[in-house]
Amino acid sequence: MTTAFTTFMPQALDAARAAARRDEVPVGAVIVSPTGEVLATAGNETRERLDPSAHAEILAIQRACARLGSERLTGCAIWVTLEPCPMCAAAIAHARLARVYYGARDPKSGGIETGPRLYDHPNLHHCPEVIPGLDADTCGALLQKFFKEKRFQ
Amino acid sequence: MTTAFTTFMPQALDAARAAARRDEVPVGAVIVSPTGEVLATAGNETRERLDPSAHAEILAIQRACARLGSERLTGCAIWVTLEPCPMCAAAIAHARLARVYYGARDPKSGGIETGPRLYDHPNLHHCPEVIPGLDADTCGALLQKFFKEKRFQ
Repeated sequence: MTTAFTTFMPQALDAARAAARRDEVPVGAVIVSPTGEVLATAGNETRERLDPSAHAEILAIQRACARLGSERLTGCAIWVTLEPCPMCAAAIAHARLARVYYGARDPKSGGIETGPRLYDHPNLHHCPEVIPGLDADTCGALLQKFFKEKRFQ
Repeated sequence: MTTAFTTFMPQALDAARAAARRDEVPVGAVIVSPTGEVLATAGNETRERLDPSAHAEILAIQRACARLGSERLTGCAIWVTLEPCPMCAAAIAHARLARVYYGARDPKSGGIETGPRLYDHPNLHHCPEVIPGLDADTCGALLQKFFKEKRFQ
């Protein structure tokens, strides 16, 4: 099968797996420039940093902005293994990211296709294009395995 | 006039004015422990840090968590001069803050009483008590003055 775009979900999954090894919720994100350059990669670090805002998407945005010397990531794309929560969905809009590619749907905590559906509201002044469901089974299985092991610890 | 609580809006306003002096959007936030101790104060730093997530509320949460050595601020309150945006409203929920006191309403970018009304959705697993409209005129006037001066620069 051919695809119309290069997928960066394998890198996002690697970041999610690295998060799991650090005992963080296994979500990973990658930000890619309009020319296809990887600008930043991050996994969740909420436990390590004792910071509830240290989700993979927020850290990736911070790193990509630092790399470009800009508080806007116009034209860039973010690849993330899980549907972003409302905090991250809004941060993605603030950063003016052009596209969000994500893996598993998050009916419990998502903010894009579930719950508050942030991009349906006009007071998000910028709404990225959303491409959901990429490698969703692999992305979701990582999370299921992580939480299943937690329950039996 | 007596009030049933000690107000921390003057400190939040001071942080907002300090942000304006740094040419940042004048929003300020203060986080207070259950015993009334100020744990953190912050103003917007998005320009200085080149970080679209560096809103006053996010920075105050990060600082208060660092101070307490915890990624949860259970029982604490946040005082903020402007209705939090969806990113900050969700971060406040992630941090398990008990109460949000805020000043001016933000019909363009707010996330609590306007737009996506985040706390009305069950997939925010924790919803703080919300006390809006404190010193709203003073809080709003700061923002109006800042943006009016920007237009004439």
